[in-house]
Amino acid sequence: MEKRNAVILGASGLVGQRFCQMLSNHPYFNVIGLFGGWASDGKKLSDVLKLPDYCIPQSDLLSETINQLDIEKVKRIDPDIVFSALPNDLAMEAELELASHSIPVFTNASANRMRDDVPLVVPEVNSEFLDIVTEKDGYIVANGNCSSIGLALSLKPLLKYGMRDVNVTTFQAASGAGYPGIPSMDIMDNIIPYIRDEEEKMEKEIPKMFGSLESGRIKNSDVKVNPTCVRVPVRDSHLEVVSVTIHEEVTVEEVSEAFMNFRSHPQEINLPSAPEKPLILRKEENRPQPYLDSMAGYPVRARGMAATVGRLKISGKVIRYVTLSHNTIRGAAGGSVLNAELMFKRGMV
Amino acid sequence: MEKRNAVILGASGLVGQRFCQMLSNHPYFNVIGLFGGWASDGKKLSDVLKLPDYCIPQSDLLSETINQLDIEKVKRIDPDIVFSALPNDLAMEAELELASHSIPVFTNASANRMRDDVPLVVPEVNSEFLDIVTEKDGYIVANGNCSSIGLALSLKPLLKYGMRDVNVTTFQAASGAGYPGIPSMDIMDNIIPYIRDEEEKMEKEIPKMFGSLESGRIKNSDVKVNPTCVRVPVRDSHLEVVSVTIHEEVTVEEVSEAFMNFRSHPQEINLPSAPEKPLILRKEENRPQPYLDSMAGYPVRARGMAATVGRLKISGKVIRYVTLSHNTIRGAAGGSVLNAELMFKRGMV
Amino acid sequence: MEKRNAVILGASGLVGQRFCQMLSNHPYFNVIGLFGGWASDGKKLSDVLKLPDYCIPQSDLLSETINQLDIEKVKRIDPDIVFSALPNDLAMEAELELASHSIPVFTNASANRMRDDVPLVVPEVNSEFLDIVTEKDGYIVANGNCSSIGLALSLKPLLKYGMRDVNVTTFQAASGAGYPGIPSMDIMDNIIPYIRDEEEKMEKEIPKMFGSLESGRIKNSDVKVNPTCVRVPVRDSHLEVVSVTIHEEVTVEEVSEAFMNFRSHPQEINLPSAPEKPLILRKEENRPQPYLDSMAGYPVRARGMAATVGRLKISGKVIRYVTLSHNTIRGAAGGSVLNAELMFKRGMV
Amino acid sequence: MEKRNAVILGASGLVGQRFCQMLSNHPYFNVIGLFGGWASDGKKLSDVLKLPDYCIPQSDLLSETINQLDIEKVKRIDPDIVFSALPNDLAMEAELELASHSIPVFTNASANRMRDDVPLVVPEVNSEFLDIVTEKDGYIVANGNCSSIGLALSLKPLLKYGMRDVNVTTFQAASGAGYPGIPSMDIMDNIIPYIRDEEEKMEKEIPKMFGSLESGRIKNSDVKVNPTCVRVPVRDSHLEVVSVTIHEEVTVEEVSEAFMNFRSHPQEINLPSAPEKPLILRKEENRPQPYLDSMAGYPVRARGMAATVGRLKISGKVIRYVTLSHNTIRGAAGGSVLNAELMFKRGMV
Repeated sequence: MEKRNAVILGASGLVGQRFCQMLSNHPYFNVIGLFGGWASDGKKLSDVLKLPDYCIPQSDLLSETINQLDIEKVKRIDPDIVFSALPNDLAMEAELELASHSIPVFTNASANRMRDDVPLVVPEVNSEFLDIVTEKDGYIVANGNCSSIGLALSLKPLLKYGMRDVNVTTFQAASGAGYPGIPSMDIMDNIIPYIRDEEEKMEKEIPKMFGSLESGRIKNSDVKVNPTCVRVPVRDSHLEVVSVTIHEEVTVEEVSEAFMNFRSHPQEINLPSAPEKPLILRKEENRPQPYLDSMAGYPVRARGMAATVGRLKISGKVIRYVTLSHNTIRGAAGGSVLNAELMFKRGMV
Repeated sequence: MEKRNAVILGASGLVGQRFCQMLSNHPYFNVIGLFGGWASDGKKLSDVLKLPDYCIPQSDLLSETINQLDIEKVKRIDPDIVFSALPNDLAMEAELELASHSIPVFTNASANRMRDDVPLVVPEVNSEFLDIVTEKDGYIVANGNCSSIGLALSLKPLLKYGMRDVNVTTFQAASGAGYPGIPSMDIMDNIIPYIRDEEEKMEKEIPKMFGSLESGRIKNSDVKVNPTCVRVPVRDSHLEVVSVTIHEEVTVEEVSEAFMNFRSHPQEINLPSAPEKPLILRKEENRPQPYLDSMAGYPVRARGMAATVGRLKISGKVIRYVTLSHNTIRGAAGGSVLNAELMFKRGMV
Repeated sequence: MEKRNAVILGASGLVGQRFCQMLSNHPYFNVIGLFGGWASDGKKLSDVLKLPDYCIPQSDLLSETINQLDIEKVKRIDPDIVFSALPNDLAMEAELELASHSIPVFTNASANRMRDDVPLVVPEVNSEFLDIVTEKDGYIVANGNCSSIGLALSLKPLLKYGMRDVNVTTFQAASGAGYPGIPSMDIMDNIIPYIRDEEEKMEKEIPKMFGSLESGRIKNSDVKVNPTCVRVPVRDSHLEVVSVTIHEEVTVEEVSEAFMNFRSHPQEINLPSAPEKPLILRKEENRPQPYLDSMAGYPVRARGMAATVGRLKISGKVIRYVTLSHNTIRGAAGGSVLNAELMFKRGMV
Repeated sequence: MEKRNAVILGASGLVGQRFCQMLSNHPYFNVIGLFGGWASDGKKLSDVLKLPDYCIPQSDLLSETINQLDIEKVKRIDPDIVFSALPNDLAMEAELELASHSIPVFTNASANRMRDDVPLVVPEVNSEFLDIVTEKDGYIVANGNCSSIGLALSLKPLLKYGMRDVNVTTFQAASGAGYPGIPSMDIMDNIIPYIRDEEEKMEKEIPKMFGSLESGRIKNSDVKVNPTCVRVPVRDSHLEVVSVTIHEEVTVEEVSEAFMNFRSHPQEINLPSAPEKPLILRKEENRPQPYLDSMAGYPVRARGMAATVGRLKISGKVIRYVTLSHNTIRGAAGGSVLNAELMFKRGMV
């Protein structure tokens, strides 16, 4: 199939630059425009670089197509697909406007995430939600919140045991707050046991992600999530301590198998950014760790796309474990790229 | 009452130096000897300093009484009281030997902590356990593990609601592993979701701490603790995310009152290192934090001796909150100093 | 002498809160008003706390006198003295206005620091510059830049050797950039070898500080400073690697003596915030260090007011050493408090 | 040419694992044995992993050829080439033994680095030193100290201006101390202005590196290096603030050109791990930074092999700049790999 022309909105932010990284030399998409706040300041993308140079293709850095955020300009370029890393206050309107202009938008912003007509998709978890997009022209597909995505991946193989409620304490990296985000004075040698709106997002998103499709509408699951979200002095990746109450008793061996053997639709249809194994089970007692496991995922294009689980323990009907996933790759830009790859394969982009 | 002569064992370590700090100019105790590994290397205490100079009295730094760990020497000095920050492998035998030699030992080591004849005491929680020491001559009193003490303080006022089980995820500071402890390469920009033996300690200690005294013996409580212990890149203080299932329904107001009004025996008898309020309830949504709350506790001598609680939420019969306490002060040296002050007041030192 | 009424401008910032801390229970000054940006947001000072609670007196936290920045209001309160931690863009005009209204202003802002009629004073270095203030009513006295003050203190005892030029590489703490200051994403596990305007300040301030007073005007010294200013992931204190070319050859012993025996005017007249020894020479090969030496200074009120020097080496006519001082105490708020104490003693406040 | 069989000594350490990484799928070398301390403990390499999994080939992790350090075993395997990341106390004897057994040894250990018959080589700086190896059978080639290599790379293009003396202040990453290396309690939120033996190494190595070959012997240069070596809380890469006194006056433009156009022997003969540009000049005022520039070097196999320079300033005959290079790649394992590639091309391996 022919490559589709893509633009990235909000390309100067931490997630925007992960979009640049993941779309570089992409087999399905060809980036033709980067939009962000820097151009209006007379800067180049290389002036606002937040990732090491080798992450961003040189051509992007020098690109002539760098422009101010200007929805009219995006519409004139008329891309086949838009990736949005816009801040929430800009995202709501801009994304709806583009969708109404027959442009598919794959977004990391939370602004439109909970709308009834916007599928909130983690491809390994609920790719069937994409069915609610019936018209090829103009729609929004959202990835979830960074802390929800990693959790959802690890919960999916447990679903068969009858998941009742989920308690989760998160250890969230500073990059989750974007740029400039968290002042260094707040997080150096410190922990902040609160992240605005984060617990609310997890409480709402997990039930939507695990909902069912009934006559073309998503009906939320009644799973209950009790999150406590905490910011820690780590650059990338969210680690989550999870306990799940299920309906039956299972053994550590069974659950280990369930984690290890977990494969889903993106693996079956071999999407370019899909990791061979979406869940990597570590048996070492001291894993997962952000430094060692952030970039889990094979092959190279899927680095940072696998979640890692470890420290599995079961007592009665409670399964406890630790999971970790990269918050700006799998939990943000990579989530939307995978959604887009899936829609491309379906002929919907 | 006359001051008692004290020696500190293991004075070169992180906890040992907190003993030096807390016993400096102490109204009950007079440090006459510091024992540690440095003297055998021909060093002075100032050569192995792990706290800023002002924490340790100059007289200690220059002390002539600095000696190699040598239990015979301790016995010859014949102190009225010994504070032990010995590593576990040395502690078991040395402490028993000193106790059998009629010297009261107040220890932070875990080696003898779970013995039937050793009261495991957090004075605000279970000072009555000291009653099992009936002979003035020669005994061991242990403080708990750093992560157990902070948790126990916060649980005590909830006891009246009929505490059933406790789930806790910890965010533990690097100083908890002592010195040299955790290699910087393991914890810089990283999290380690495992601390050897830590979860086991919490599982055993909390039931002992909340046990009852029956005919002179401690009978463990049947409260069940499910801990996940995690190391984070913070220098001092353990933060813990706690959820407690109780027998009845209570309101946030009731529990807030219970936390705020909590006073116990050390406050009543006005021990020098006892904080006016052992629990400080923060209403700000983003507290407690290690940087801001580690040294909570008033007056000056009690800095680092109060635990801080925050983020109180209740759903049904589950109380959720975050607690924080200084791991090497309240959670280690300060815990034993408070125990010793209590025994001094009882005329048992 | 009677205590003077003081107000603090910019009290919600990192330096402003150090002013609160250093003026708490001060023997000369009585804080009657705190001005800052938080009041206009309907917040209390406790909501914008950037230091642990025990640093700031409870009375300040609850103070009724907390007000929006409003120079008219300051003038109506008519304090005997103003301490300014205003951001530069507000400082220039506000400070001149207050001074013209007969209020002495002691400022940490750089806005008016290089004016001819504003003495730039580090009391141990150039207290005689205060002589240019001849009228009791209305003036500005500035402390230097955080990186200049620590350097100047360490250079002063070397002056007698005929200081020619000074090369300095700084390791500057994140708190030097204020709040919110440096984004955590820029400095976690990272170093930034550039601080805007910092090198220029050092190049200009050191010659002014070491200038001479000629007919009531400050004539700059011709010492040449070559600084490279670098931000490092440390919360507090600036460490500086210094090499000074002098006119004669000296021995390590001579320079050690010069450092150790250094006392100056604030020590002679026994100012409350003056450290007994303004320079502390460490002979250990691995000192000074921010964690161990930031709060150097004795007695308690002078903590953080002494600079520490170490690693002294001399080859030919070049003296090399490392110095460290607390950037928001000695290098900012404490610098101005010491200036104010000196003027109080002179009867000029 | 046929691939050569290589073994890695000390493969469980930080530098050893960088050897594994850089030799994975290498066009010249085929790793047939990994030797390290873990095997004797009954562990696998994956149990002592200090880099993310994707850095080390799976085949290495599972390798049957993992063995205890056993020089006899190495000799029996009879590799064509040995890479040594041995600790110094083991390195001296083991490397000489292997060399005497006709095995070429490329070492990062400093033990034999200053021997007359051991070329100390940074290929872009002094590849001609390899000429002193005249016999193919059995020799040692050493890379320099991590802080010397980065400095040497940046000095090489300045040589033509008549380099007289070099002042350098280093900001060295924790990984430079190996594993377990620096205790986290020493370096969290802290700086240590001393690294044992490091300044001495730079003082000796730079003159040897810039020496000349006279009748088959290396005659040291008389350039004088004045280093102050400082440890900072950063995981990887050494940043160095350099000032060089030269014999003539040059312009910033000339020196910029010299940096940018610098190419040397490894680039000419196109060695696989040689970066296209060994020096990358950044014009942004706030570069180089460890986070952004550690992995500089193109193509992929040369990542971490380029040094980055920035902040170039010239006053009179003094050139000032900042340089940064990866301490365990270019400054250690990569240095030796590049040396080995050069000898392979010469037919000497």
